[in-house]
Amino acid sequence: MNSFGRIFRISVFGESHGPAIGVTIDGVPAGIKLKVDDFIPDLTRRKSGAVGTTPRIENDTPEIISGWFNEHTTGSPLTILFKNTNTQSADYGNIAKTPRPGHSDFAAYLRFRGYNDFRGGGHFSGRLTLALVAAGVVAKKMLDGINISAQILSVGGSSNIEKTIDTALSKGDSVGGIIECTAKGIPVGFGEPFFDSVESVISHLAFAVPAIKGIEFGSGFTAATMMGSQHNDPIVDGTGKTSTNNAGGITGGLTNGNNLVFRVAVKPTSSISIKQNTFSIKTGRVEELEIKGRHDACIALRVPVVIEAITAIALADFLMLWKASNL
Amino acid sequence: MNSFGRIFRISVFGESHGPAIGVTIDGVPAGIKLKVDDFIPDLTRRKSGAVGTTPRIENDTPEIISGWFNEHTTGSPLTILFKNTNTQSADYGNIAKTPRPGHSDFAAYLRFRGYNDFRGGGHFSGRLTLALVAAGVVAKKMLDGINISAQILSVGGSSNIEKTIDTALSKGDSVGGIIECTAKGIPVGFGEPFFDSVESVISHLAFAVPAIKGIEFGSGFTAATMMGSQHNDPIVDGTGKTSTNNAGGITGGLTNGNNLVFRVAVKPTSSISIKQNTFSIKTGRVEELEIKGRHDACIALRVPVVIEAITAIALADFLMLWKASNL
Amino acid sequence: MNSFGRIFRISVFGESHGPAIGVTIDGVPAGIKLKVDDFIPDLTRRKSGAVGTTPRIENDTPEIISGWFNEHTTGSPLTILFKNTNTQSADYGNIAKTPRPGHSDFAAYLRFRGYNDFRGGGHFSGRLTLALVAAGVVAKKMLDGINISAQILSVGGSSNIEKTIDTALSKGDSVGGIIECTAKGIPVGFGEPFFDSVESVISHLAFAVPAIKGIEFGSGFTAATMMGSQHNDPIVDGTGKTSTNNAGGITGGLTNGNNLVFRVAVKPTSSISIKQNTFSIKTGRVEELEIKGRHDACIALRVPVVIEAITAIALADFLMLWKASNL
Amino acid sequence: MNSFGRIFRISVFGESHGPAIGVTIDGVPAGIKLKVDDFIPDLTRRKSGAVGTTPRIENDTPEIISGWFNEHTTGSPLTILFKNTNTQSADYGNIAKTPRPGHSDFAAYLRFRGYNDFRGGGHFSGRLTLALVAAGVVAKKMLDGINISAQILSVGGSSNIEKTIDTALSKGDSVGGIIECTAKGIPVGFGEPFFDSVESVISHLAFAVPAIKGIEFGSGFTAATMMGSQHNDPIVDGTGKTSTNNAGGITGGLTNGNNLVFRVAVKPTSSISIKQNTFSIKTGRVEELEIKGRHDACIALRVPVVIEAITAIALADFLMLWKASNL
Repeated sequence: MNSFGRIFRISVFGESHGPAIGVTIDGVPAGIKLKVDDFIPDLTRRKSGAVGTTPRIENDTPEIISGWFNEHTTGSPLTILFKNTNTQSADYGNIAKTPRPGHSDFAAYLRFRGYNDFRGGGHFSGRLTLALVAAGVVAKKMLDGINISAQILSVGGSSNIEKTIDTALSKGDSVGGIIECTAKGIPVGFGEPFFDSVESVISHLAFAVPAIKGIEFGSGFTAATMMGSQHNDPIVDGTGKTSTNNAGGITGGLTNGNNLVFRVAVKPTSSISIKQNTFSIKTGRVEELEIKGRHDACIALRVPVVIEAITAIALADFLMLWKASNL
Repeated sequence: MNSFGRIFRISVFGESHGPAIGVTIDGVPAGIKLKVDDFIPDLTRRKSGAVGTTPRIENDTPEIISGWFNEHTTGSPLTILFKNTNTQSADYGNIAKTPRPGHSDFAAYLRFRGYNDFRGGGHFSGRLTLALVAAGVVAKKMLDGINISAQILSVGGSSNIEKTIDTALSKGDSVGGIIECTAKGIPVGFGEPFFDSVESVISHLAFAVPAIKGIEFGSGFTAATMMGSQHNDPIVDGTGKTSTNNAGGITGGLTNGNNLVFRVAVKPTSSISIKQNTFSIKTGRVEELEIKGRHDACIALRVPVVIEAITAIALADFLMLWKASNL
Repeated sequence: MNSFGRIFRISVFGESHGPAIGVTIDGVPAGIKLKVDDFIPDLTRRKSGAVGTTPRIENDTPEIISGWFNEHTTGSPLTILFKNTNTQSADYGNIAKTPRPGHSDFAAYLRFRGYNDFRGGGHFSGRLTLALVAAGVVAKKMLDGINISAQILSVGGSSNIEKTIDTALSKGDSVGGIIECTAKGIPVGFGEPFFDSVESVISHLAFAVPAIKGIEFGSGFTAATMMGSQHNDPIVDGTGKTSTNNAGGITGGLTNGNNLVFRVAVKPTSSISIKQNTFSIKTGRVEELEIKGRHDACIALRVPVVIEAITAIALADFLMLWKASNL
Repeated sequence: MNSFGRIFRISVFGESHGPAIGVTIDGVPAGIKLKVDDFIPDLTRRKSGAVGTTPRIENDTPEIISGWFNEHTTGSPLTILFKNTNTQSADYGNIAKTPRPGHSDFAAYLRFRGYNDFRGGGHFSGRLTLALVAAGVVAKKMLDGINISAQILSVGGSSNIEKTIDTALSKGDSVGGIIECTAKGIPVGFGEPFFDSVESVISHLAFAVPAIKGIEFGSGFTAATMMGSQHNDPIVDGTGKTSTNNAGGITGGLTNGNNLVFRVAVKPTSSISIKQNTFSIKTGRVEELEIKGRHDACIALRVPVVIEAITAIALADFLMLWKASNL
């Protein structure tokens, strides 16, 4: 499904090599001050261009085509478009029948019976995260007093990030990474259990981001190795503050007044320059594949702002639901 | 929100110490053969009684009160109730004002302004997973040819499970664990990206299960340490079979014809017999808390069947959505 | 789908002759004072027993089995059960294969491939409206300052209601009716266009009530015969008050500060004692059918309280959505 | 909410005088043949230009910006944009503070606290029905063997349509009308009771269309005047064919094998050239208002194709849900 959220609800659309990608946000309250320039900082952070990122550089200028009047949101659905201007579709001519390892190509071909737009991964492209970042900019404006910050913790298992990427680049290979996100200032009680726990909603959105393969909150997988007496965070005052934060700021699926902390694992970029074997649907044989096109050696570098965005999107919806249930 | 799913849609309700807990499943196709006895094996696996599990033993007899006629599903919503027969609410008298570390007590008290049923954790109790297991039994019946199996990989960081639990028990402490789930036989193309990737939906459901704090698919967090040339799974035949399975059977958010594999991290049971400090809402001071009641030393032991259930629930919905979109 | 609503969300389940019918309400705010006795007045209004209503009298005692503690709502899903105690299933032995004109029998048999619980109409029974009335009682408690009142306008085209029913009863026939509902005190701006206009949501719920075949707001069908200069309601003050109310209190899909007014058409009860012809699935021939069982000569008599309930359910959800979108 | 549907799910966005309006359709199956020219006939039917319709003529050229490749749908969300090229916003300068009778102006101003785009009614404009018509074109392609046809039955209470409109035009007034829609060839069993009866879903969509104030299925309001023995439609063969069709092709909320028949009441266009009184938010007094701009004398003339579209949208979703629940 291409929509997510209950009140602050986003719908994404578009393909990597189609005319445009975009997002419609339903449920945005009226009266939020918003300028086109407000999108630039986060869009820039997501942009390629650094070492290890794809040389495909788009202008990524947002066009607000609905829900916006006199530089404020109107309360009607807010649609933001990004034209695709720098597409080189010829690069992808053989993807349709020669599915790239690690990509959606094979599964999408079968699911959509060959009708999917395979160019550049089509709707499965990381380019769609542009829509998430744009929605995140709007969501952040609703979260007064909440500060969300994500950054790379490690790349290829090492905290020596640049060196690891250089090594991968020199081999025509790629490398994964770990990102940590912290959100401060969230009131106690955000979240909508049973099913819409804070962890549930954030993980749902996180796994929509291409290349994410794991998520953990607070101590996460380490918690599984701990004793309860170590893991339990003692509450030390009436605001809910705890002396440790193994829970990552969430107990019972609700925010508990401490920092929300989680980490995601980003797999190495699937597109690599090294030759690989794959099964050709055309010839019915395993064949050697050389991927051309333009790619990131470490997609993880561009993901922190996307993770901030999905966190803001989740929190904006929780905020609205929390307001709704106040008598 | 207490419902989840788009077509095969479950709604859970109930509290640990209320009259009953239950689940309504909407969207169940008519004509599925179903007997009360069909629930017993999975309910028994979830049951306490083993070393390390709570001595609170319920009969957990399912009562099917709607959507069921002549031992078949009718196509109307299927509601299954479990009466709460063995509640000792007196044990929980002081929870309301003395929030237990690691539990929902503090956050729920603030969110619901003191009106929540705090006894035994109320709606946040692990007892609600009974509803998931029951729904999982129905979901499994829809998944012909698909085999789902989850088991404990380790407890407290060790594969010597019994010994680790005995040690924890002897100290009045508790311990966490890791569970791995494998599903075989899933057709290529289940999943509904952009937002409802297979990882998204499974993680959403997994984090609704109390005590889950991490999830990873395939190589998961290890993927973040790998090179693309190692991580990419080469496709070796026309069924999509890959020679490795670092993707855990999911590429582009869609099942790819290989085994679905994921692991979840279960934190140590929050209720321990060891005395702990916490903030008393009544006295406004940090005080010593001794939790009585009956608890699991290792709740992870009871979770594998719950993880199977949520996997089956996710797959049943994906199956129905997949059928819907076939021309 | 057996659920409706975005935040204040109701799920109904059950069959006429199964163990019980019920409703789960998700999204109820915590802290609403609620006693079992609060349900009695509306349940009594819905009850049969008057001239023209079925002699099947149930006790209809609500059992609150979740989301309720110390006589207040808890913020968790509120489930209310009604046991079916007075079922005479033998009366319905031949429905399965001899579909009753006007009923769901034939369509349900094909849709559910013969697996539906046909006894008393099963899940299609008017008995399910008990769940709506119960949910309506809870919804009304959330609507401080709003007064909802529905009543019969006419029966069989005549305002001489008792006489018309007596005539129908004497012939073993049945008769339809018109109900008008008025809600006073609704703030300006309830409603969620584009799709969830006030008319859209109320009509959606109204047509879920068995036997409703038409709905009109304000002047309704008469509006189609009017000139704009007649139909437009002039606004006369800063509260939005209009000197006429042809719009029925809704402009642009939003409440406009005037009374919400709508009417529904209730068809005559489909079950009549007069012999009818129908197609027998068993014999493959048109045969004469005599419906036994117990039925209402004028089901419309029992519907006003149901219409009030669905109005309250719609308004409770609109209220919560309105709160959510306030900055 | 600006989305509707469970699988075939449409989201509309845009304002009358913004850069564009559009629709995203999620859940469209892959492989439907679709050309831009396919939209022209229905878009033309909706267009103004006839006597009684507004002189504002847009080109209304659809731009398909996602979900479309090689002239087929791809299975990804299909987004269709219509640029607004012929806007004369200066005409609407005083709407913000001088709410037009019959329009959303007053209610929208309060609900959105003055931030709504009031120009031409903004998001409440009938121009949004362009999005519905476009989605209807796609939906119709999914409904092999089903024929949907809507037409004007009467205008201003008279079947002498042209004359009635001429009279209204000559006075600077407007007039309402009745539209009847018939859909043939629907299989038995479409519909998703309890809440998503065929009547519920169609009425929900119909009341999203500006100016609709009533709907009735089959005999509708007349049914309320009938006896059961008259109203019940006798089933005459194994396909469910009935000798009369008072039910309008729907029993128990499910299609029953007969023609789906319903009528909607369209109120007279609210914008008229005749001077009207209204309350000025600016001056705090009732003042005389003269509406300039360009308007339809009988908006009902342009609505039949919109009603066909919403019928097709509802049926496409029912079809997909029906497929989903087949074992």
